[in-house]
Amino acid sequence: MYFSKSFIPILKNNPTEAKIKSHKLMLRTGMIKQSSAGIYSWLPLGFKVMKKIEQIVREEQNRVGVQEMLMPTIQSSEIWKESGRYDDYGEEMLRIKDRQNREMLYGPTNEELITEIFRSSVKSYKSLPQLLYHIQWKFRDELRPRFGIMRCREFYMKDAYSFDISDDEALYSYNKFFLSYLNTFKRMELSAIPMAADTGPIGGNLSHEFIILADTGESKIYTDKRIFEVDSTETIIDKNSLAQLRKDFEKYYSVTDEKFNKSEFENNVEENNRLQTKGIEVGHIFYFGDKYSRAMNANVDYNGKKEFVKMGSYGIGVSRLVGAIIEAKYDEKNEIMKWPLSVSPYDCSILPIINKNDNSNLDRAVNIYNELKKNDLDVLIDDTDENISSKIKKFNLLGIPYQIIIGKNFNEHKIEFKEINKEPIFISLDKIIKILNKKK
Amino acid sequence: MYFSKSFIPILKNNPTEAKIKSHKLMLRTGMIKQSSAGIYSWLPLGFKVMKKIEQIVREEQNRVGVQEMLMPTIQSSEIWKESGRYDDYGEEMLRIKDRQNREMLYGPTNEELITEIFRSSVKSYKSLPQLLYHIQWKFRDELRPRFGIMRCREFYMKDAYSFDISDDEALYSYNKFFLSYLNTFKRMELSAIPMAADTGPIGGNLSHEFIILADTGESKIYTDKRIFEVDSTETIIDKNSLAQLRKDFEKYYSVTDEKFNKSEFENNVEENNRLQTKGIEVGHIFYFGDKYSRAMNANVDYNGKKEFVKMGSYGIGVSRLVGAIIEAKYDEKNEIMKWPLSVSPYDCSILPIINKNDNSNLDRAVNIYNELKKNDLDVLIDDTDENISSKIKKFNLLGIPYQIIIGKNFNEHKIEFKEINKEPIFISLDKIIKILNKKK
Repeated sequence: MYFSKSFIPILKNNPTEAKIKSHKLMLRTGMIKQSSAGIYSWLPLGFKVMKKIEQIVREEQNRVGVQEMLMPTIQSSEIWKESGRYDDYGEEMLRIKDRQNREMLYGPTNEELITEIFRSSVKSYKSLPQLLYHIQWKFRDELRPRFGIMRCREFYMKDAYSFDISDDEALYSYNKFFLSYLNTFKRMELSAIPMAADTGPIGGNLSHEFIILADTGESKIYTDKRIFEVDSTETIIDKNSLAQLRKDFEKYYSVTDEKFNKSEFENNVEENNRLQTKGIEVGHIFYFGDKYSRAMNANVDYNGKKEFVKMGSYGIGVSRLVGAIIEAKYDEKNEIMKWPLSVSPYDCSILPIINKNDNSNLDRAVNIYNELKKNDLDVLIDDTDENISSKIKKFNLLGIPYQIIIGKNFNEHKIEFKEINKEPIFISLDKIIKILNKKK
Repeated sequence: MYFSKSFIPILKNNPTEAKIKSHKLMLRTGMIKQSSAGIYSWLPLGFKVMKKIEQIVREEQNRVGVQEMLMPTIQSSEIWKESGRYDDYGEEMLRIKDRQNREMLYGPTNEELITEIFRSSVKSYKSLPQLLYHIQWKFRDELRPRFGIMRCREFYMKDAYSFDISDDEALYSYNKFFLSYLNTFKRMELSAIPMAADTGPIGGNLSHEFIILADTGESKIYTDKRIFEVDSTETIIDKNSLAQLRKDFEKYYSVTDEKFNKSEFENNVEENNRLQTKGIEVGHIFYFGDKYSRAMNANVDYNGKKEFVKMGSYGIGVSRLVGAIIEAKYDEKNEIMKWPLSVSPYDCSILPIINKNDNSNLDRAVNIYNELKKNDLDVLIDDTDENISSKIKKFNLLGIPYQIIIGKNFNEHKIEFKEINKEPIFISLDKIIKILNKKK
């Protein structure tokens, strides 16, 4: 993409309305634009990041055998009355009357709708387990939306649901998601720790939040540092292996303030291992047994007997992750962002120094651009006539992790190639292509 | 995917509530499930088809230089009051009040929102043209939703918008979409013809509908048969080449009943070239100049003067295409569907004959399944103990275009490989893999 042709409306200064760094950076680099309170459009740069996150989430769901589908955004109130949550949900639910005066709502979550789909489709325990997910827009009518896409009203979320015949099988499903979430966040270069959590309005008695550390996080967390060393790389999709992984994590005290108990923390964690900081929730998993299946009569035949299925639900905030990654990776003081390559809007940028009446550097840049494109690399080239220092300043905010800088001493065997936050190296284009393809 | 583990809830018989063949087949094969009037969930089989269609649409938009972004589903009424369409739109617009009593709506289209984004981001004609698209759920509160996803309320649509400095440039943008649409539908093995159309509530004076032929279509069409022979394969993204393509099409009379005029038809088309039939609209493009930019004050600096930008909009019904392809390809009488491979939910199916107490055919099938998966082919294997004739009946409805049948005379050098509607051939697995990969 040529910068001059792109739709990346960059602001000269930080917008005054933004309080946290992800909100500031996303507005400043033209990733998003507010359309009304708590509702945003995703401009091409922000959209590309969100799509890459979505694709990683999708691949890791597929990998543990979850099937993708898609439920609509607008639901009927009837199923919510069946489950008893229509009144409970309060004003955060966006309630709608259609032209026939039917009570509808914009789904904030989908336990009811998936249970309704399940009960009318599956009759026998032989079809279990069933693990289903979708990635869809949801709406929560926050009283005070703020922090950009971190606490907005219309948000993009992956929610999955599991259906099993017994608690034991259901726990196996739960643990598959547990592993899948660790792998998902790892691919985004985030270290997310699973923490015992309250179940809140979803219900049930087993729940984990996945939290990434960030000073600006809204959750206080209390944890044993050693939890960061738990290794899931050898875990396989097998009941015992997954149960062991859960045990390895649960050895270490790790809770948010909802579950925090000072004396428990101090009794369980030696002083030099105690970590008390803030974090951002990026995923949340729940096991709630037959809470919804009983209320909505979702049962299967089990050797001639009707059994209510055991269910769990599993969420990842896809749009929220865009902000969470910025909170974790953006050096606001020096105005330097560096996207993990797996979610970066582009693989590499090209910054030619362009002098008046001399197109030679732009020509060189275009040749390199074409060569990178031939090698399936997605590149943003700054073909504008801004001076190089403002180009570098701009691209440090855009956060594409690799830069090729083309200046007066251009030498095709020693092209200036810079990873953000590192010293430049001088290598051939072939080597640059090798490095970029390897990192991808 | 193993059929026994999949979430493909097949109905034994055609559902009585469905009137047209796409609606029948989609319910019967568990592609969709109605959640309320005119609102559907997309179950895994239907979802896979829709995603493949979406991806083709995306690639063909990208190819002509349109940038992807994403606007939200919920919009503020304010911009619709600016354009003057808030009152015009009537009851088909789903109107919503949020908890603060603000007037919101579920977007039925996005001319206003994209104009608002454009006017606050682009200041100079030097940034033009800008071509932007998104693929997002939309809502039209149809009085009588019917025909399944063909005339539903919540639907998935690609809508694109172009911004140019002059009519001449805007026409070039329009023609890029014209070509892109032809290529999009061709990749789905649909012959869509562009027809001069009314602009309706979108406005403007130039518009084409893209119509595919289907007996069950809702539009009557009147055309010169020779229009099917117009060839766009040599057309390139160049003003003259695109203008020529438009001329090549416009040589032939081709309109829907809205624009039909009997004497014009008879004067312009020789009797043996006249075709009078029905069709389904799958795309619609509009040029409307400064209709919205003037109402909403979207202008750019053009050598010191403010000029209202010239706009067009361009829609493809992504969810509707799923139904349209079925209408075009499903042989209802013989209950045989055949998906174009480019949008088929799976590349191939494997149907082993499984006898009681004898797993040898299932084992063979699983080996072949694993081999195909290793070659990046997406396969549905029927591991159930149904008899082979009901398996074949079921898979003829599912419409995966290729079947491997594993029966009693299994010979690994001569595996029974069948393209739906053709005679089986007997070849090695290597050859099967070559054929499937080549067709993809």
